[in-house]
Amino acid sequence: MIYFDNSATTKPLPEVLESYQKVAGELFANPSSVHSFGGQVERLMQQTRHQAARLFEVESQEVIFTSGGTEGNNMAIKGIALMHQSRGKHLITSKIEHPSVTEAFRALETLGFDVTYIDVNEKGKVDPDSIVHALREDTILVSIMSVNNELGTVQPVQEIGARLKEYPKVFFHVDHVQGLGKIHLPIKESGIDLCTASGHKIHGLKGAGALIIQKKVSIFPLLHGGGQELERRAGTENLPANVAFVKALRLILETQKNAGDHLYRTHQYLRDQLKNIKEVIINSPNDCAPHIINFSIPGFKPEVVIHALGEKEIFISTKSACSSKEPEVSTVLKACGLDYERTNSALRVSLSYQNTIEEAASFIEALEETIEQLKETMRR
Amino acid sequence: MIYFDNSATTKPLPEVLESYQKVAGELFANPSSVHSFGGQVERLMQQTRHQAARLFEVESQEVIFTSGGTEGNNMAIKGIALMHQSRGKHLITSKIEHPSVTEAFRALETLGFDVTYIDVNEKGKVDPDSIVHALREDTILVSIMSVNNELGTVQPVQEIGARLKEYPKVFFHVDHVQGLGKIHLPIKESGIDLCTASGHKIHGLKGAGALIIQKKVSIFPLLHGGGQELERRAGTENLPANVAFVKALRLILETQKNAGDHLYRTHQYLRDQLKNIKEVIINSPNDCAPHIINFSIPGFKPEVVIHALGEKEIFISTKSACSSKEPEVSTVLKACGLDYERTNSALRVSLSYQNTIEEAASFIEALEETIEQLKETMRR
Repeated sequence: MIYFDNSATTKPLPEVLESYQKVAGELFANPSSVHSFGGQVERLMQQTRHQAARLFEVESQEVIFTSGGTEGNNMAIKGIALMHQSRGKHLITSKIEHPSVTEAFRALETLGFDVTYIDVNEKGKVDPDSIVHALREDTILVSIMSVNNELGTVQPVQEIGARLKEYPKVFFHVDHVQGLGKIHLPIKESGIDLCTASGHKIHGLKGAGALIIQKKVSIFPLLHGGGQELERRAGTENLPANVAFVKALRLILETQKNAGDHLYRTHQYLRDQLKNIKEVIINSPNDCAPHIINFSIPGFKPEVVIHALGEKEIFISTKSACSSKEPEVSTVLKACGLDYERTNSALRVSLSYQNTIEEAASFIEALEETIEQLKETMRR
Repeated sequence: MIYFDNSATTKPLPEVLESYQKVAGELFANPSSVHSFGGQVERLMQQTRHQAARLFEVESQEVIFTSGGTEGNNMAIKGIALMHQSRGKHLITSKIEHPSVTEAFRALETLGFDVTYIDVNEKGKVDPDSIVHALREDTILVSIMSVNNELGTVQPVQEIGARLKEYPKVFFHVDHVQGLGKIHLPIKESGIDLCTASGHKIHGLKGAGALIIQKKVSIFPLLHGGGQELERRAGTENLPANVAFVKALRLILETQKNAGDHLYRTHQYLRDQLKNIKEVIINSPNDCAPHIINFSIPGFKPEVVIHALGEKEIFISTKSACSSKEPEVSTVLKACGLDYERTNSALRVSLSYQNTIEEAASFIEALEETIEQLKETMRR
């Protein structure tokens, strides 16, 4: 199997699964229980939070474990909106955010909030100027992703954060789900107030992740209850999943440091090879994140290409998995102003550090074969 | 180890952990992915939902997998309130609900909702009449738990549901976290619109559970995004956890059927033995759920008793784990009108089907010893 759909989800590492299993099976007590077994589990929880804080380069009290990226994004956006609405009901985001961001904003519109959706250029890039221009007296939140999940476009979040420092009343949220472990993002220095991370995109487990919330920032929790996660996210802590998440985080950051070049080389190889296929147009910008390459084959239905490659045990995707069942064309590519033919024939290869140049070569060969076969079929 | 804190959390069954491990390690694709690997995972997801529906005796489209009980309760309560507020902003619950219910209501009060908290009698029982009396023109939701987590009191939810059928505009939510696998609750026949279940209370995994939502009922989702879980709960599905949850559910329902008598006998044994200890007053009603027995030892600090038993590897708890770190006395026992001495010295034993009469006997012996030792210390 050649698995090139790592932006949809990744294969959990065996050592991550082992950690999960060990904690789930042995240290199962509720950390809120007063007895010593509960206390033992609580100590492990504190260590886990401390380690996460070190890896994210924030403080322990700023790490809130969540059930994943969608929860983190919803918690940040709705949490700020509902908590700070007395100060203003205007929110800013871009036109190419992940559905868990865009739909959270759409939902807030039904509750009386006013949202500005910022345009992007043909490479999917947000201009920091356009964010500053959209700011109003009643703006309370700006939410911009670090890396776009379909194109791999890296947004200038550090520059946006720097510009927003002049507007201390505006909170800045970054959906870092696709960027984590691929690009470095210093949360504190970038002026980011809330930052979303997901476990299953970094060879961790589904149902795990974190929302980093600067300690000065208050939110309206999505989940009220027993006061867990520093009063920001109630519910019995899923310690096995949190331990597994932090292990995956540590490992991917080490890999990013040690194997970053390999990922860039694989990406560059794919880009060079795809350029040589005359039916292919590359959509991802040259300076995109190293794990994503998006391209179109105008005239070819992406589902058909995906199924043909699937026959060869090669798995790539159309647009984001979170919107791939909808019949419409990619809203991301449409927002970039690409024509209908390109937005309607886009494919995404998304790599992990585990993928090899050999796999990339096999994929290119299979893609060329598939294109020829499909052309043959169409000629008949 | 004698683990008598099963209402805080249970030990996951080995076969539940195995199922998790298998699905997480092998069937890791995103079910929303278009390729055949995604399709394979999606079929398992549908089977899992179908099996859950059969076990809950509802339809497949009525099963929404969640990250657990706190999410289910918040999703039901806030989801109904935010979706149906144009029809009215009055909500009804009892004074002895779980914090994930009570605090969700308190949070809605800050958003302009009006909540009636119904009194209970000295056994923690809600009177269906008092609910009907509290109904107003603008009431949109009633939320009552099936089994109280501290006392084990079984609420007359079927009777409440029957009475509420005369008020078709009022939604009825039941927090069934403590009741699942212990008492039978026919969701459909009881007129329940939303019903919360949790995995880790039934030897499943933390971070898993379900909210049953009758298909005619619309809610405002807590998590917006990619449209997963029938547009009611976005986010990449945690299929390994869901499979594990449904396995735990199947097993506990089988055990309830086959070993129910054993649990009642163990409970009765404990009750009889505790009655013989002159320092002990039993707080749980005679007709309470079979897995919980709450009692007070006036004059003895519960933490001290718990630590002394912990030295003997016997784990019991004070009040609910979800509020056990708070210094105040139990709000549940206070709402029952018990005096300060009793509310301030309450202990909870919570059983699983795996606990034996021998363990119960060892516990009683250890408790008697502990009381004598503590009396000795106090005399000095």
